[in-house]
Amino acid sequence: MTKNFEDISELPDTPSATENPVSIIPLGGLGEFGLNIMVYETENDLIVIDTGFMLPSSDMPGVDLIFPDIHYLVERQEKIRGILLTHGHEDHIGALAYVLRQLDVPVYGTQLTLAIASGRLREYGVLGKAQLNTIAPGDTVELGDFSAEFIHVTHSIPDSVAIALRTPVGVIVHTGDFKFDMTPIDGKLSDVQTLARLGSEGVQLLVSDSTNAERPGQTPSERSIYDTIDNIFQKTEQKLFLCTFSSSLHRIQQFIDLAGIHRRLVAVTGRSLINNVRIASELGYLDLNPDYLIDARDASQFKSHEVVILTTGSQGEPRSALALMALDNHSFLKVEQGDTVVMSARIIPGNEKSIGNVVNHLLRRGAKIYHERNANVHVSGHGASEDLKLMLNLLQPKFFMPMHGEYQNLMRHAEIAESVGIPSENIRVAEDGELIRLTSEACEVFGRQGRSGRVLVDGKPEIELEDIVLRDRIQLSQDGILIPIVILNSDIGNDSQQEGVVAGDTEKMLTGIEDVDEVIQTDPTIKTALNAGQIEIISRGFVYMDESEELIEEAKEITRRVIENLNDEQKHETEIVQDEIRGALRRFFSKQMQRTPLIFPVVMRV
Amino acid sequence: MTKNFEDISELPDTPSATENPVSIIPLGGLGEFGLNIMVYETENDLIVIDTGFMLPSSDMPGVDLIFPDIHYLVERQEKIRGILLTHGHEDHIGALAYVLRQLDVPVYGTQLTLAIASGRLREYGVLGKAQLNTIAPGDTVELGDFSAEFIHVTHSIPDSVAIALRTPVGVIVHTGDFKFDMTPIDGKLSDVQTLARLGSEGVQLLVSDSTNAERPGQTPSERSIYDTIDNIFQKTEQKLFLCTFSSSLHRIQQFIDLAGIHRRLVAVTGRSLINNVRIASELGYLDLNPDYLIDARDASQFKSHEVVILTTGSQGEPRSALALMALDNHSFLKVEQGDTVVMSARIIPGNEKSIGNVVNHLLRRGAKIYHERNANVHVSGHGASEDLKLMLNLLQPKFFMPMHGEYQNLMRHAEIAESVGIPSENIRVAEDGELIRLTSEACEVFGRQGRSGRVLVDGKPEIELEDIVLRDRIQLSQDGILIPIVILNSDIGNDSQQEGVVAGDTEKMLTGIEDVDEVIQTDPTIKTALNAGQIEIISRGFVYMDESEELIEEAKEITRRVIENLNDEQKHETEIVQDEIRGALRRFFSKQMQRTPLIFPVVMRV
Repeated sequence: MTKNFEDISELPDTPSATENPVSIIPLGGLGEFGLNIMVYETENDLIVIDTGFMLPSSDMPGVDLIFPDIHYLVERQEKIRGILLTHGHEDHIGALAYVLRQLDVPVYGTQLTLAIASGRLREYGVLGKAQLNTIAPGDTVELGDFSAEFIHVTHSIPDSVAIALRTPVGVIVHTGDFKFDMTPIDGKLSDVQTLARLGSEGVQLLVSDSTNAERPGQTPSERSIYDTIDNIFQKTEQKLFLCTFSSSLHRIQQFIDLAGIHRRLVAVTGRSLINNVRIASELGYLDLNPDYLIDARDASQFKSHEVVILTTGSQGEPRSALALMALDNHSFLKVEQGDTVVMSARIIPGNEKSIGNVVNHLLRRGAKIYHERNANVHVSGHGASEDLKLMLNLLQPKFFMPMHGEYQNLMRHAEIAESVGIPSENIRVAEDGELIRLTSEACEVFGRQGRSGRVLVDGKPEIELEDIVLRDRIQLSQDGILIPIVILNSDIGNDSQQEGVVAGDTEKMLTGIEDVDEVIQTDPTIKTALNAGQIEIISRGFVYMDESEELIEEAKEITRRVIENLNDEQKHETEIVQDEIRGALRRFFSKQMQRTPLIFPVVMRV
Repeated sequence: MTKNFEDISELPDTPSATENPVSIIPLGGLGEFGLNIMVYETENDLIVIDTGFMLPSSDMPGVDLIFPDIHYLVERQEKIRGILLTHGHEDHIGALAYVLRQLDVPVYGTQLTLAIASGRLREYGVLGKAQLNTIAPGDTVELGDFSAEFIHVTHSIPDSVAIALRTPVGVIVHTGDFKFDMTPIDGKLSDVQTLARLGSEGVQLLVSDSTNAERPGQTPSERSIYDTIDNIFQKTEQKLFLCTFSSSLHRIQQFIDLAGIHRRLVAVTGRSLINNVRIASELGYLDLNPDYLIDARDASQFKSHEVVILTTGSQGEPRSALALMALDNHSFLKVEQGDTVVMSARIIPGNEKSIGNVVNHLLRRGAKIYHERNANVHVSGHGASEDLKLMLNLLQPKFFMPMHGEYQNLMRHAEIAESVGIPSENIRVAEDGELIRLTSEACEVFGRQGRSGRVLVDGKPEIELEDIVLRDRIQLSQDGILIPIVILNSDIGNDSQQEGVVAGDTEKMLTGIEDVDEVIQTDPTIKTALNAGQIEIISRGFVYMDESEELIEEAKEITRRVIENLNDEQKHETEIVQDEIRGALRRFFSKQMQRTPLIFPVVMRV
């Protein structure tokens, strides 16, 4: 670092011949929440930090999951020295199984992170071949041109780490998710000593979590909700339902502690919650007296003030235990008049409606509801503005690049960095798919990687959903589909090579199928005409067929006329027949109803 | 009022023979936001307060609007003495045209309310026959058993009123939307004197707005955002875009005032905004110097610091001017580096994603963005908890019924009423479709009206969307549709009355159409077989057909086998053929892909 910040803009934008610059490629998580996956690459070596998934938004009907597009990694498999995981949340590890099915590379993570990840690896059948390497905070791993040091940070799940990468062009710190909790539940502080040491030694680039960049102040300690929950325990005379994310183990620890104090037995429901509680207590991340644990199926055998039920469903997920209870559809748990439900989780934007539905139904059952908007029952695991400033000030990086968030969050984080003295020309707001090059003198966006994007998954994990299918679904959901089916006589096609077929012949050939069925019963002699042509119209999601007979009959008539007006050569060309029918029906429905269903004519020939 | 509150539960629940009780029937707005329409009815007379619509949520694909189901009114047309409108917001007047197409009844509203409503009445062709009666705050109208007094209240649109109904069983106050703005932009305060007088005289029932019941404190004055907007004007050196709802006329007045002070010309874009500005200035509700107004198409002819552009699109609506500018797709307006955009409106839950998309794109264009989450640029028009308490304390009603909101908002408002001393047994939390009976002694839910619900509208206003069509759309959007088309020989049906058709015959009759086309070209002799049967499979939104040939071929083969295994009698029954094909394909796709598209077999006979 021979130049100061002011000189940087005058530097040549090609690295010196002797340098081995680091390319940084965000494959996900820069421009959206979730899907976190970042690539750091030198000439010889490549490492990946995190492999997260993302849940679809409501404008992606029928999509179950979104994975990052990892073609960039598949094409460079031989260079990959490892996948490093920061913590056990699905937006950081949820795509690991998907990635390991395509790549045979070592994985590094803390004990809890790997334990949680293993569940899904087993499910996907890749646990056996996975090269899982447990690291502890403070460990350093050599990975070719990179050396990775793991640094403990506080977050809503234990065993979270930031990663300091020593590279040929200096130290890069990748924070993962973090906050500076000064009184963490497990007593393990963010390792500010190590961060401060790195800052003193010199950090070339900080890549930091922007999730809460738009929130002012400092995120309160996880412990800050304890008194509120304690108070709710005291006030609740009947059943108490505590709802949170299955991975919020610090939260779960507080619930369990308070259950002990208030002498309530703990019932856990929900597969992921049961799994995580089991894993975390086996590994010692959760302090749980098994004597206090009961099977949720037995909860009804105890008096209502003797039990607390831990459950998931804080986002109003329709198939969650809480949503089922709200509708009184749960097979063995019941929310009754006088019970209390605590939704101890963030109301994620976009989920207000489904959460609201669950809350409304729980209220109708007579329950008392606490959620983050009416009580202090949730605190974020991500640092707010002042936490982000502390991270910046501890590390005093030369360059800064915000990650984790939509563009507005990244931009806000950039402003925060500027406010603590990082020159704006040293701040790079990049998005997914861009290539950023870090040298000892510069940090610049210098292009896009060829293929980036997302893989939409529907059904079994291996089934990728094409964009075109999703577009079809969206159009189907808007105005439905209408399928005119026309049966033409193959003779038409063959005859079309000859001259002399008159339009009148065609008219005879086309007969509505419904009328035909009746005719068959009464007058078998007409059967010869049937070989020629028929028209049927099928529709779903467009109009209610039973009440729209007239409309459909008119559409059939239009289709019939379209075919009459085609010459024999045109009739032979299926695409022409389809185009003409589609055009005529689109005009008809648009005029009649101002709706344009997906019209998909089928031409069959007999 | 000879009995005190404590006695009420002991009263008989039938009214005395001499009484003429009032039935209260919420047809909309109790259990949801929007769709506000309330019926008050005696033995002889019926009045309606408000006729609002509702915008669909994202789980209602392709629905444009939601109207209330007004069968209850249509069946009682001869009893209806009038429709009373509280103010000019669409959730209160948006269904008026729909209602007036079915009912020929007088309408009462203030000047501005009727002027705004007239636009849509004209559009729907009912303005000519509409009996519109302009009332002013302070007026009283006699409507059979009811006498309605209109009381001015402050809200985000001028000329808003609450309504005091004198009925045979006492006074009912229906608040409409309100807040207690102590420094309103137009200087017209909520008429607390009249409210207090009514309270002194005795109010039997208060029906009050619950929109902001969950917010603590008092809603600040509309004027409270003035300094922030003023400051933004001062700081903005280039174009300034001010975005709000087209009906927020107090907000628009402030924008116009500040534009004058900061010597910027005002350009207005968006049809509804242009209309409302025109109507409101013509009627004197907006103080606007026409010299300062320019056509938005000419905005680019001025220097960027000389103009302010008023626009809609605060909810990220994809076809709004703001969304088009965000993507640089607007035909004559452009957001450029250094411009400022103020989104001076509520971020309505459910719209976060579309708003976020617009904000992200505007930021990418280099604009500075202010919205309610990062600056004091919006204030609600609805009273918060303390406003609601003031209304309750001014009127001191015997009975209380919250309206306008989801169940959780109504419940919260009920708690607020209890907190100011209304006994809980005198509070009725009712929802749409319930019938509440008010007597001089009691206010009780005593049943449901026969038919209640919503009318979903798609396309032209007159086209109602059946629930079943919406369900189809939702299923279509989840997994798409798959349509197997089978052509059977009609002879099968006729032959089935006889014995002796063997399965082997059927096998010959069924031939995949794609192979067939090729065969036709090369071997015309096979044509006789085609008359018998063919199978085609059509699909949309399920799998990408071009890449799923193998899967579709397998599905055809399964369909073929299903038909082979049917006996001739079964083949004759179209429903049996359809059921068997549907079942077999559902099992196949569910096993293969864990997806279950809507499978809709078509059986055609030739």
